[in-house]
Amino acid sequence: MSTTEGRLGIIAGGGALPLLLAQVAPDALMLAAEGTACGLPEAALTRFRFEKMGGLFETLRAGGVTRVVMAGAIDRPKFDISQADPVFMELAPQLMAVMQAGGDDALLRFVITVFEEQGFAVVGAHDLLPQLTAPVGLVGGPEPSMAMLRDAERGRAILSALSALDVGQGCVVEQGSCLGIETAQGTDALLGYVKATPAGLRRGEGVFCKFPKVGQDLRVDMPAIGPGTLRAAADAGLSCVAIAARKVLLLEADTLPALAQELGLSLIAQDAG
Amino acid sequence: MSTTEGRLGIIAGGGALPLLLAQVAPDALMLAAEGTACGLPEAALTRFRFEKMGGLFETLRAGGVTRVVMAGAIDRPKFDISQADPVFMELAPQLMAVMQAGGDDALLRFVITVFEEQGFAVVGAHDLLPQLTAPVGLVGGPEPSMAMLRDAERGRAILSALSALDVGQGCVVEQGSCLGIETAQGTDALLGYVKATPAGLRRGEGVFCKFPKVGQDLRVDMPAIGPGTLRAAADAGLSCVAIAARKVLLLEADTLPALAQELGLSLIAQDAG
Repeated sequence: MSTTEGRLGIIAGGGALPLLLAQVAPDALMLAAEGTACGLPEAALTRFRFEKMGGLFETLRAGGVTRVVMAGAIDRPKFDISQADPVFMELAPQLMAVMQAGGDDALLRFVITVFEEQGFAVVGAHDLLPQLTAPVGLVGGPEPSMAMLRDAERGRAILSALSALDVGQGCVVEQGSCLGIETAQGTDALLGYVKATPAGLRRGEGVFCKFPKVGQDLRVDMPAIGPGTLRAAADAGLSCVAIAARKVLLLEADTLPALAQELGLSLIAQDAG
Repeated sequence: MSTTEGRLGIIAGGGALPLLLAQVAPDALMLAAEGTACGLPEAALTRFRFEKMGGLFETLRAGGVTRVVMAGAIDRPKFDISQADPVFMELAPQLMAVMQAGGDDALLRFVITVFEEQGFAVVGAHDLLPQLTAPVGLVGGPEPSMAMLRDAERGRAILSALSALDVGQGCVVEQGSCLGIETAQGTDALLGYVKATPAGLRRGEGVFCKFPKVGQDLRVDMPAIGPGTLRAAADAGLSCVAIAARKVLLLEADTLPALAQELGLSLIAQDAG
């Protein structure tokens, strides 16, 4: 099944991404789980429940959807088993096993498989919006120092070591000292933690690194940064944000170079293999 | 050179360990860097400056010291080069290179080497105080659940993956979800971070894991837990503290089983290879 033809279904989560996708694919069918806040107008949305998985697939097919993109953050759902339809019940044992086994990656990979088995192509937001990633090089702000490039490399090594364990897409390194690793609480919490670091442990010229896990399926979970990330990094006293070229989504991409300059933050994209 | 004969020199840092060592080796020569707060009476202490490294070695030799133990936390020193003696000056280029290259492990390994090259045996606090570590098994509190044992194993795998990168001796895992990894800010900061986790990300029965890095030289940097650690773990909503058997120092060891029971916290020691 082609990823460039057929009507697109947007499964919308939080953040700016669903709206950006709706702009490049105005004829897409837009869906969101009940209770999920997303940036799309409610009138344009079809709401669904995960427990009515069979109903969701019917809705997609009835709307002529052949390709699906999952866009934006969706909280790990809590299921109301009394609402479950037969399709959900059939998947339930596998789903529960996957959810109990740990990280979100496994859960998201399972969800992709389910959609594919139902005959839908699952595409990545980055495939639909290539202009929202950066090529290798300086994206904005001042040129990074050699110390920053070294720290970015160390940050990447730390994230790479954790990849197989399904932990972390972000970390902070400052002159060799690791000041934080992103866990379930996300980027903002990490940068707040770095900001609260006692002054005696700070060395200056710190780098926030954002890379996908090695082998991560970007169709379900693509790391993203935006103006808020840059502001939070600067607010945490950091001097550089290093991202994976082509593998990290830039939210409000066109505003980032000027903002990086304004904040005195080197925003660099590195080859991530 | 034997590690069980000859007068002991205690290089005292912060925390309870210097006092415990002084109790088992009452004839030891006790030293502390200027400005370092340690639990030993000032009158019993010989103060030294790192910049007067030659003077320190003379003091040790004049006192008949053949074995040295480094005990307790010492802040990464800032050197006043105008105070440096010839021994320090000779070591300075190597020292600066090691300090710039990154983590504390390399620095501490270098310090050990320097002491050894000067003819001193460097012994570990755990060798002098074997009663301050735990054998494999339940140290105190209720029996851990299977979920806790699984999380402890996952925590150990996370720390093991980071070992080669000189990051982290502690992490928190809760039903498979990693809620924090210890970085330069230390254990209390990590547990405070976990405590601040939004309720929606908590799954209950969480485990704080404390293991030395793989291949870590316990003579210079031995992980430690004490009553404060147990209280902070309980305060962060965790249910279990998992440590490496024989490789983590128990501060106020005799009080920990009762405290674990009081807090409803399973304190377990696992084989760390």
